[in-house]
Amino acid sequence: MDGLLTVNNVWMMICTALVFFMHLGFAFLEIGLTRQKNTINILFKNLFIITAGLLLYCLLGFNLMYPGEFNGFFGFAGFGLNSPLVDGSLDLTYNEGYTYWTDFLFQGMFAATAATIVSGAVAERIKLNSFMIFVVLYIGLVYPIAGSWKWGGGFLDEMGFYDFAGSTLVHSVGGWAALVAIWLLGPRIGKFKDGKIGAFPGHSMPFATAGVIILWLGWFGFNGGSVLSADPELTSLTLVTTCLAAAAGGVSSFIFSSLRYKNYDITMFLNGILGGLVGITAGADQMSPTDAILIGAIAGVIIVFGVALIDKIRLDDPVGAVAVHLICGIWGTLAVGIFGNLAGFDQFLTQLIGVACYAAICIAGSFLIFYILKITLGIRVSAKEETEGLDIHEHGMDAYPDFGIKQH
Amino acid sequence: MDGLLTVNNVWMMICTALVFFMHLGFAFLEIGLTRQKNTINILFKNLFIITAGLLLYCLLGFNLMYPGEFNGFFGFAGFGLNSPLVDGSLDLTYNEGYTYWTDFLFQGMFAATAATIVSGAVAERIKLNSFMIFVVLYIGLVYPIAGSWKWGGGFLDEMGFYDFAGSTLVHSVGGWAALVAIWLLGPRIGKFKDGKIGAFPGHSMPFATAGVIILWLGWFGFNGGSVLSADPELTSLTLVTTCLAAAAGGVSSFIFSSLRYKNYDITMFLNGILGGLVGITAGADQMSPTDAILIGAIAGVIIVFGVALIDKIRLDDPVGAVAVHLICGIWGTLAVGIFGNLAGFDQFLTQLIGVACYAAICIAGSFLIFYILKITLGIRVSAKEETEGLDIHEHGMDAYPDFGIKQH
Amino acid sequence: MDGLLTVNNVWMMICTALVFFMHLGFAFLEIGLTRQKNTINILFKNLFIITAGLLLYCLLGFNLMYPGEFNGFFGFAGFGLNSPLVDGSLDLTYNEGYTYWTDFLFQGMFAATAATIVSGAVAERIKLNSFMIFVVLYIGLVYPIAGSWKWGGGFLDEMGFYDFAGSTLVHSVGGWAALVAIWLLGPRIGKFKDGKIGAFPGHSMPFATAGVIILWLGWFGFNGGSVLSADPELTSLTLVTTCLAAAAGGVSSFIFSSLRYKNYDITMFLNGILGGLVGITAGADQMSPTDAILIGAIAGVIIVFGVALIDKIRLDDPVGAVAVHLICGIWGTLAVGIFGNLAGFDQFLTQLIGVACYAAICIAGSFLIFYILKITLGIRVSAKEETEGLDIHEHGMDAYPDFGIKQH
Repeated sequence: MDGLLTVNNVWMMICTALVFFMHLGFAFLEIGLTRQKNTINILFKNLFIITAGLLLYCLLGFNLMYPGEFNGFFGFAGFGLNSPLVDGSLDLTYNEGYTYWTDFLFQGMFAATAATIVSGAVAERIKLNSFMIFVVLYIGLVYPIAGSWKWGGGFLDEMGFYDFAGSTLVHSVGGWAALVAIWLLGPRIGKFKDGKIGAFPGHSMPFATAGVIILWLGWFGFNGGSVLSADPELTSLTLVTTCLAAAAGGVSSFIFSSLRYKNYDITMFLNGILGGLVGITAGADQMSPTDAILIGAIAGVIIVFGVALIDKIRLDDPVGAVAVHLICGIWGTLAVGIFGNLAGFDQFLTQLIGVACYAAICIAGSFLIFYILKITLGIRVSAKEETEGLDIHEHGMDAYPDFGIKQH
Repeated sequence: MDGLLTVNNVWMMICTALVFFMHLGFAFLEIGLTRQKNTINILFKNLFIITAGLLLYCLLGFNLMYPGEFNGFFGFAGFGLNSPLVDGSLDLTYNEGYTYWTDFLFQGMFAATAATIVSGAVAERIKLNSFMIFVVLYIGLVYPIAGSWKWGGGFLDEMGFYDFAGSTLVHSVGGWAALVAIWLLGPRIGKFKDGKIGAFPGHSMPFATAGVIILWLGWFGFNGGSVLSADPELTSLTLVTTCLAAAAGGVSSFIFSSLRYKNYDITMFLNGILGGLVGITAGADQMSPTDAILIGAIAGVIIVFGVALIDKIRLDDPVGAVAVHLICGIWGTLAVGIFGNLAGFDQFLTQLIGVACYAAICIAGSFLIFYILKITLGIRVSAKEETEGLDIHEHGMDAYPDFGIKQH
Repeated sequence: MDGLLTVNNVWMMICTALVFFMHLGFAFLEIGLTRQKNTINILFKNLFIITAGLLLYCLLGFNLMYPGEFNGFFGFAGFGLNSPLVDGSLDLTYNEGYTYWTDFLFQGMFAATAATIVSGAVAERIKLNSFMIFVVLYIGLVYPIAGSWKWGGGFLDEMGFYDFAGSTLVHSVGGWAALVAIWLLGPRIGKFKDGKIGAFPGHSMPFATAGVIILWLGWFGFNGGSVLSADPELTSLTLVTTCLAAAAGGVSSFIFSSLRYKNYDITMFLNGILGGLVGITAGADQMSPTDAILIGAIAGVIIVFGVALIDKIRLDDPVGAVAVHLICGIWGTLAVGIFGNLAGFDQFLTQLIGVACYAAICIAGSFLIFYILKITLGIRVSAKEETEGLDIHEHGMDAYPDFGIKQH
């Protein structure tokens, strides 16, 4: 047995576990920032995403995303997993950083997160059936095909586009679909009325906060595992840049929003941390600590503007998913051309091209799926169901049946 | 220092931590699926199980379960821990996969989980004192003696019985005791009235869901650590089969229960995931991904029938522990004879014999303990205490004193 | 690439992640044990501590705490991080147990915990602005300078003072400041009235319990990582002593408090576990399992007395931080002279001297900061704000806006 493969593989398995755990983070964050009457619905969506997502990635996603030799735009290595064998045992020379199984599972955990991002944005009004169909198509097809362009060795990889752990490949891919979805879906009843923006405070700040801390923890695996080995220098640098960007994002978002709104808004602090994390993700292995702090701090400011912007253009994003995952995802991807080892005008242009290509496939893909769903099954619940809550209508249950609830 | 021992030991320590963390998963799941008035009582039981369980395993359990050379049925290597020393230092040749200390701690974390399974089933009506005595006797004596039959190298191990990570040795051992306990204890007041089954919805779906996600995370360590080294091929395969079975269990349980009950029941989704996890546990290192998906999917269906069956025979299991841990535990154990590398009629028969032996010792052991407790101290709280809640009576506190509570 | 460095570094990165995760544990514990009307405020404080704490440790803390060659009392290696390079790459001979980046991040996670301890004690009445200034000064200056005396190789290290993972350097450093703060701050309105001690039950026992289980999990990294390598013998022994002390602390606190108060008080169980953990921390690598159980069991008794003592001297510590972190921190530090490999009268005296030195710098430092804040900005919110809750006044939000709240 090769000791270095063993330790690399241990690290990758731990990172896989941490990325898996992000699903609790997303679930907590989403229910925390929405109303209690839709809690079960959100939890159900999240359970579906992680379970169906893994099965789909096993069935076809992995082989769409990593097709081996292909034309750079689309390739498919066949259904199911095809573990490389040597004399009946797993070929341990597959990769020096991990086994075939670890590779599949780590990438599978990533796949599911892209759909989760959409879940938060469409919360409190989307039809569960339609959302589940979207998840199947988007995780099963769009995400892995788009991913193959860079991580599968496709044309953007050839071109020198850089996205270390997925500011674009994961977060923007989710973010674009979130943007398209909330545009097609329309705002929640009462969100924009008589030119005013209605307040829909989330029902549990402890869950929202726990969600962000769990997501930060998960990012140790998301970015740390994207080194694809336990290389001591790169993994540890990556954790440092990741944590510093998160910290800077939170502090800058908190300071900037409290100057602007004269209020210590905890949701801005939370989204600032996430913005910092999304922002550093594209170049976490290429930045110095100072670069990371700057990237995070700028992401924190972007969050404050981004959330206000989404409101201003009358889109309703209950958890701030577009600001966090799309806008900061773009920022992080471009930042690779501005800061760190790869900085340069050519790289910046390449990053811009990459962003545009992902915009194209994700907007097209998600629009096609949601639009067809909209004119067939419908994507939005009835006004009565929305008002009374999705939990009681779609699930026949209250999330908290023992507690007195304030109706609003 | 031996590098390979170091990495193996690191992996085993991480798995130990993950199995420890399952106790939060169990606690969240149990309180989530029960009423708020018994929340502190359940948390208290869980704290007792993990703390007293570790101390008991240190005092005698470890040496009962792994007695070294013994007659195959019962052996005891003495009280306390006996760390193997060479010149005053720990003997690092003890095992190539872990040190003596890691071995103890990993196994100690397993021991406590068996009792936790019972905790969920007996929730909301058992006397705390009697339950604590049960825990001491069952974890202290029954679990390790039963465990020695296979993992300690006893007669079932000799016979070729296979239980990789404890579908039987942990989950069924807990499940049989849960079955005996709820039979002796009787249903909660109002559960079966006038031929109808009363609905007792759990008080927090977020906690229940978080519990299952944490348990799934913990299973990375439960199954991954049962390889007993960081062997890259086996550990990574095990994580893949574990996660695919969980995913398949959840999806199949959700689909099957929504076809049957025309309702998206989140508790079925949750228990389906757990059923898939319990089902794969006996053979997680022997299955292909396809096998794992089949085992999980069947477990998901079993859950839906199992929960209905327990209701039908008028047993009251608030969290579905018998269906999840006992029935899926048996299923997973038998599945080793049906799917994967060991499949075969002889193996299937051996698996059946193993299941029967564990049924015998666990039913006998738990019956003896609970029956004696029933006719002496009593095992059930008074009707008044049950109605008003165990929290206020046994602990003098409310779990959520600041919130308005709906009485029911 | 050096395999052993790689595995050591993997272990240290995992431990770093676990210590980071303790911040969710602290947050849950603190909100669980306090009233819902101050929940956001506490979460906000905790977010500030971890984000600002990391940035400060990067800016100056790390180089104050580990100044290299210095006079033993105060040294500073300059602002920012100074990663050691060889030909433009990180010097991997920096340490055989971890890279420079890992070193910084692991220590940075520790730094933030010291301030978190204070946060719990001052909860429900401190002005957020003043607390944030305290955090900046105490984490930025006092904690690292005090830390340099032992872990930076300063005069207490020269003298033979032993504090493996921070019973004194982290827990007492936080505990002394907590003590000073609650003395200057005064009790919450209604806590001590007409010679009686008012009951302020915490608003969520599930969060409090989850907090303690997460903290215990985090302690796998806190103590396990303090070995500063993945040495199989020492790391695994450390995890065993840590877990046994936690278990013994919980059980002894539970038994002792139920004998004394005729009540199964879950908060005593929880604080007993924490007391055991804090108690073992100074000597976790030097104790046998039996020593660990004794140290933990004594800590459990200390908790029961300690909490009563703080009440008796009319100090108001909502979460029991002084009993847990200060008193058990002192106990654990002294226990190094009583139990285990280092036991001896000389060692005991040295431990006493160390405790006294830390008392001096921490009392002086925290008094100076809080006193100046008190006479300038003020440290306490208005009576109206305290009564109505800090959430609505400082953050303009409710933590649980959908739930009916009982005012009290």
